[in-house]
Amino acid sequence: MLLALLQANAVVLDTEVNLGTIDQAAQRAASAGARLLLTPELFTVGYAPVRVRAELDPDSLPALRARLQDIARRHRIGLVYSLPAVAPDGSWRISATLLDRDGTVLTDYAKVHLFGEGERKAFGAGSQPPAVVDFHGIKAALLICYDVEFPEAVRTAATHGAQLLLVPTALSHGFDAVPQVLLRARALESQLHVAYANHSGTEDGCMFLGGSVVAGPDGGLLASAGTAAELLLAEVSVDAVDAARAAVPYLADRRPEAYRAWGLCGS
Amino acid sequence: MLLALLQANAVVLDTEVNLGTIDQAAQRAASAGARLLLTPELFTVGYAPVRVRAELDPDSLPALRARLQDIARRHRIGLVYSLPAVAPDGSWRISATLLDRDGTVLTDYAKVHLFGEGERKAFGAGSQPPAVVDFHGIKAALLICYDVEFPEAVRTAATHGAQLLLVPTALSHGFDAVPQVLLRARALESQLHVAYANHSGTEDGCMFLGGSVVAGPDGGLLASAGTAAELLLAEVSVDAVDAARAAVPYLADRRPEAYRAWGLCGS
Repeated sequence: MLLALLQANAVVLDTEVNLGTIDQAAQRAASAGARLLLTPELFTVGYAPVRVRAELDPDSLPALRARLQDIARRHRIGLVYSLPAVAPDGSWRISATLLDRDGTVLTDYAKVHLFGEGERKAFGAGSQPPAVVDFHGIKAALLICYDVEFPEAVRTAATHGAQLLLVPTALSHGFDAVPQVLLRARALESQLHVAYANHSGTEDGCMFLGGSVVAGPDGGLLASAGTAAELLLAEVSVDAVDAARAAVPYLADRRPEAYRAWGLCGS
Repeated sequence: MLLALLQANAVVLDTEVNLGTIDQAAQRAASAGARLLLTPELFTVGYAPVRVRAELDPDSLPALRARLQDIARRHRIGLVYSLPAVAPDGSWRISATLLDRDGTVLTDYAKVHLFGEGERKAFGAGSQPPAVVDFHGIKAALLICYDVEFPEAVRTAATHGAQLLLVPTALSHGFDAVPQVLLRARALESQLHVAYANHSGTEDGCMFLGGSVVAGPDGGLLASAGTAAELLLAEVSVDAVDAARAAVPYLADRRPEAYRAWGLCGS
């Protein structure tokens, strides 16, 4: 299955411009034969947690979601987008949603590991594990940005059956080791694909790394972007996952009862 | 603190030759100013699990341990060695031991994640977490080979306070991504030093990678060996650990209760 990743610069709180960027990317990705387009964290509103929390009208969110569903439907392509979400208690989450090519919501996810003071000030943390859903024959799950830096989060998705991890991100300049080392390790140690789509350029004073990647289940990079805007394409497959897991049975060789006794999951 | 790693070829079941190799390395390491010498997995007996299990007289183990203590004491250098150990129930373990420079045992550890059929046929698996001990001002812990490929094992050591992970290994040719990707990620995600000392050459038909490394708490390689025998030196420090943990608080940002609810540590 061909996967497309949008690496681009968003304009903070200019949702028309950002939806236009996603729309164009969806068209190009679909034309290239991609079945799914992954977009960066909070791309539709721009990555600016405190400003978005202060200035975005939450009543605008349903319409934005409908517009994104329309993009998927019009281009007949699966879509992962990330938006703020309002929890039942009124606090906000950083969420991601996987749409099928008809616009149906297949799963959504709220970020569990918030990064830094800005995110913590603007958002509450989710507590639910990433759900694993079938996407046209491959088992997919969502994580968001900082989540994927924690091996525990990826391991959970893998032990629940994930073969493809779809990760919208907003990673700053200077953190090259995250895509180049950590994400390759995440893919290798849990033997799944990790697709990681980042912002480029500067938003609200934050300079982003770009450097979006797709890592394969042997830890190799299937695709890797530079610093500028780019539509990244990579082929992912269940066969690659099966081959890696047959070669070294990491998931089967885990010792979960020992980890519990050791306090890895709290006391 | 200067650390030395022995990367060398052992002769299977020729303990005199192998002790000589460790003795010479200890002398060179001490002369270079190293406070600790890390040696590969099962180096004193050679890495050949099934043959060692069948042919090594377990009654010879106490004398081998005494010889290794004598090496540490004579050269006034800490030493990590790995030997088979006989458990109270009579089954064998792959163990590692950290000696102080006066030959005192500071801690030992039994491998928890056994690799492949050979190891499983010859040895039983340990279940205890790596203990964290003070080694001249830095908190150190032991893991063995395949253990370190599991993020859960390194995370446990880190959450228990480890700043330096000492890992005897026996890694085959072809697994370059383990030291070059996985170990850098282990160091980065848990922000500690990982020292990983491997065999070189061929033992009992197995061709080893060499490729020993020391990774720092920012995920960078402090030292990296080629394929041949080599004495590798690297400087490790508590300050480097503290700086990494202050920059990104991975350990503080973990969500252990969520991991438990998600089934990461069994159901």
